Amino acid sequence: MTPPTATAPTTDSLTGELIIAGSFVAGTGTQIRAIDPSTGDEIDPPFGHGGDADVDAACAAAADAFDEYRSTTSEHRATFLEAIASNLEDLGDTLIQRAVRESGLPVGRITGEVGRTSGQLRLFASVLRDGGWNGARIDPAQPDRAPLPRADIRQRKIPLGPVVVFGASNFPLAFSVAGGDTASALAAGCPVIVKAHDAHPGTSELVGRAITDAVAATGMPAGTFSLLFGSGRGLGTALVTDPRIKAVGFTGSRSGGTALVAAAASRPEPIPVYAEMSSINPVFPLDAALRTRGEELGKAFVASLTLGSGQFCTNPGLVIAVDGPGLDAFTAAARDAVSESTPTTMLTPNIATSYADGVAALDGPATVVARGGDTQAPNACSAALFTTDAESFLASEVLQQEVFGSSSLIVRCTDTDQVRSVAAHLEGQLTATIHTDDADHDEAARLLHVLELRAGRILFNGWPTGVEVGHAMVHGGPFPATSDSRTTSVGSLAIERFLRPVAYQDVPSALLPSAIADGNPDHIWRRVDGTLSQS
Amino acid sequence: MTPPTATAPTTDSLTGELIIAGSFVAGTGTQIRAIDPSTGDEIDPPFGHGGDADVDAACAAAADAFDEYRSTTSEHRATFLEAIASNLEDLGDTLIQRAVRESGLPVGRITGEVGRTSGQLRLFASVLRDGGWNGARIDPAQPDRAPLPRADIRQRKIPLGPVVVFGASNFPLAFSVAGGDTASALAAGCPVIVKAHDAHPGTSELVGRAITDAVAATGMPAGTFSLLFGSGRGLGTALVTDPRIKAVGFTGSRSGGTALVAAAASRPEPIPVYAEMSSINPVFPLDAALRTRGEELGKAFVASLTLGSGQFCTNPGLVIAVDGPGLDAFTAAARDAVSESTPTTMLTPNIATSYADGVAALDGPATVVARGGDTQAPNACSAALFTTDAESFLASEVLQQEVFGSSSLIVRCTDTDQVRSVAAHLEGQLTATIHTDDADHDEAARLLHVLELRAGRILFNGWPTGVEVGHAMVHGGPFPATSDSRTTSVGSLAIERFLRPVAYQDVPSALLPSAIADGNPDHIWRRVDGTLSQS
Repeated sequence: MTPPTATAPTTDSLTGELIIAGSFVAGTGTQIRAIDPSTGDEIDPPFGHGGDADVDAACAAAADAFDEYRSTTSEHRATFLEAIASNLEDLGDTLIQRAVRESGLPVGRITGEVGRTSGQLRLFASVLRDGGWNGARIDPAQPDRAPLPRADIRQRKIPLGPVVVFGASNFPLAFSVAGGDTASALAAGCPVIVKAHDAHPGTSELVGRAITDAVAATGMPAGTFSLLFGSGRGLGTALVTDPRIKAVGFTGSRSGGTALVAAAASRPEPIPVYAEMSSINPVFPLDAALRTRGEELGKAFVASLTLGSGQFCTNPGLVIAVDGPGLDAFTAAARDAVSESTPTTMLTPNIATSYADGVAALDGPATVVARGGDTQAPNACSAALFTTDAESFLASEVLQQEVFGSSSLIVRCTDTDQVRSVAAHLEGQLTATIHTDDADHDEAARLLHVLELRAGRILFNGWPTGVEVGHAMVHGGPFPATSDSRTTSVGSLAIERFLRPVAYQDVPSALLPSAIADGNPDHIWRRVDGTLSQS
Repeated sequence: MTPPTATAPTTDSLTGELIIAGSFVAGTGTQIRAIDPSTGDEIDPPFGHGGDADVDAACAAAADAFDEYRSTTSEHRATFLEAIASNLEDLGDTLIQRAVRESGLPVGRITGEVGRTSGQLRLFASVLRDGGWNGARIDPAQPDRAPLPRADIRQRKIPLGPVVVFGASNFPLAFSVAGGDTASALAAGCPVIVKAHDAHPGTSELVGRAITDAVAATGMPAGTFSLLFGSGRGLGTALVTDPRIKAVGFTGSRSGGTALVAAAASRPEPIPVYAEMSSINPVFPLDAALRTRGEELGKAFVASLTLGSGQFCTNPGLVIAVDGPGLDAFTAAARDAVSESTPTTMLTPNIATSYADGVAALDGPATVVARGGDTQAPNACSAALFTTDAESFLASEVLQQEVFGSSSLIVRCTDTDQVRSVAAHLEGQLTATIHTDDADHDEAARLLHVLELRAGRILFNGWPTGVEVGHAMVHGGPFPATSDSRTTSVGSLAIERFLRPVAYQDVPSALLPSAIADGNPDHIWRRVDGTLSQS
């Protein structure tokens, strides 16, 4: 073990080591190597696997750190999150270049993602300072109540305990080592162990070092953060089933997510798993909107479809509309746009292969409308657009599956009743989008009512790609969009995933936590006898 | 099927029928009969089982009703809950006498429970009128933001869908047909199907009729409420695995709860199960408190232990303290009080048998301190008090199990470190209680810190039996106290179990739900750009 470095490393200085509670540890077993998907070349350095001893050490350190870490003030944790954000930004081109090389994503996108990631950390710092996350409630004693006096009862939320976060392939920064899951868990007061995604180990090490430096600089206990590498499901399962782990955040495939949910449910003490998994994000252009701007919508749809090689959880994989001239114009414009689209590099060879397989499986069950340009470049995504009718769609499992990448399916319906019927039969979704003109108002109202039950976010006259990080965002939705529809993985509400309420009855003043102490020393909003109050 | 009656039935007019969406339907199969546990006699009428067709009909009606019911205003649902409360109170002696006969609980206790149950319904009416349950958040558009404009994003909570509630044996009213689970699910906008507990079918029918009448009187859709009877696990499993059911509330045994959790998790679409299961509610009298009032505490402890034959989820089944003269005085007083205690009737023959078996299993692994009086009365609970040392306790699984009834175990520790070590090894609990004097302050602070992680409610200088219904109450806790520590089954926060957030992005003003509409027509607190506001 070597002590953590205080200076930002260049990509060349990456060590390929695990980070366990501030110490750098060589992994074991097969080595993991990043691949530049645009060339297929391996990138140095190799990364060793975390083994059972590393899982044990990281979990022990997190459990050890928990009591001290959860006792830090909101202000102290806010400062810590801001230090991580600054450290990320200070990595500058080193981080951006490494992430670009490992992901095949363009510089502009990765640059934006750094800002999104540091912005998320700062959002949770503001959530901590606001204090609403405590869920403070006070029901004062009523000693004279008849027939029985009422005790003094107060409620606040406390963190669940050490959390395991799985880095996602498609957002090497915003949904990875210092992404939304980590930021919200750290804000809640939970130590975090990240299992890095194999696709971007170098990016992960850089970000892991940034967090490790912030832990040291702000005086947090070393076990507050660890970073492990490991391909396959062994390491992840070991982490999720360790009794010291109390919650899990995951963004990835349906099979991966449901496997983690099952592992967590089979523990002697089951724990919550927040898995964001599978969504095809239906788009509903309504009649008047199609009539007045079908062509425009078709073009804009393909721009959203092909953004980032379609590798967004919110990629519009489905268009559902009433057949007719408006939809024809939409389809024609989308066909042209897809045909003219240039293939773009996907994140990993596996993802590119899965995409090609998924597209091939649709050819037959659905009719090809258009394919994007061809290329010999490795791991390229050539966009694909299919069409089918509503009855065929409802009868086919394969047509209702997510194909991760720039593939979408237009479902032609006979009338608006059938559109709503298809909507009502969809599995749970992260998003659903309606395009309307004023004349569509009544139908939009009916459809909105159906879609509320099927999606976490409903958009009008926009495109689902691009998830705003704010207070009102919901990036969630009914199964299989996520494993727990009661929450969101993006936005300030995400902190609630890692908290639980505790009631304090007749606890002596001197022992009360500040959030629920007499005189409201934290100056936060509290629900006193059921009424919100800041005094 | 016969139409619902509008007048309160007497016990004699009970029909023993299922209630499916306002219609009375004869059950099939083996008949269920209530038993008067104080005599062992069966009570008329017999109740038929709900079969697969009844489950299907109730689920179909609930699913049908959901869209209309969830669209009712908060004020309308508040009126509905208040109508249920009034109907319950109007049942007067008919309800009280039937519940007393079926439960063996005294009139005073049942009378109080009617008040608790109607009070809970009225609490949720006030929660609806307050409007905070909507979780309304608005992040206004920022059209001029660079580099990208921000959309208008708003968030509110919507109900999950039809909910199945399992009546509990030990609270024939407050945790049964119109209990906290039903009240909070109905408040959230979820239709409810109750599976009545076999122990009090007549009470269940009376309450089911009261709800059915309120459904009709307030113009709610008939499928908002159904009531099924059925012993064994078949009916419950059929309900929980029906795809139209979206959440489950349960209070009962650990084996029953974990079976439901497993059934719900194995569905193609897993759903949340809120199971409140097993808790031994440790009590920690600290040194100074024991020295100054050990005898008084010992007496008060037995009063809590023997209340209601110990048939509370929060019964104090464990006392953990440092050995010495103070604990000796506590134990001597408790021994005398237990010895002098009179056996009382338990809820059912099964519960009485389980209690006797549980007590017998402790005799040997632990040392008997005292037993209550003997009796030939059927289904009686004779209190039992045992003692052991900390090492034996930690080494024994049987000593750490809940024995439902008036049985408790005193664990003698060598010092405060060992007390805290035992506390840290406990499974999750609904409650933990500390008895202190001023001189115990430092140790109380250390112990509080340990107990926060193990219990949903921490009490000082009181007794855990008696769960206040209010805004700050938490009746929950880490597994196995409940299957989901992030919530409570008592108090106003319980409504959140049946809600999930939805984001609305750039939704036209005319289509926005009132909770997040422009101008705040509901006059509720909303989080606007992250800041609470009522304007």
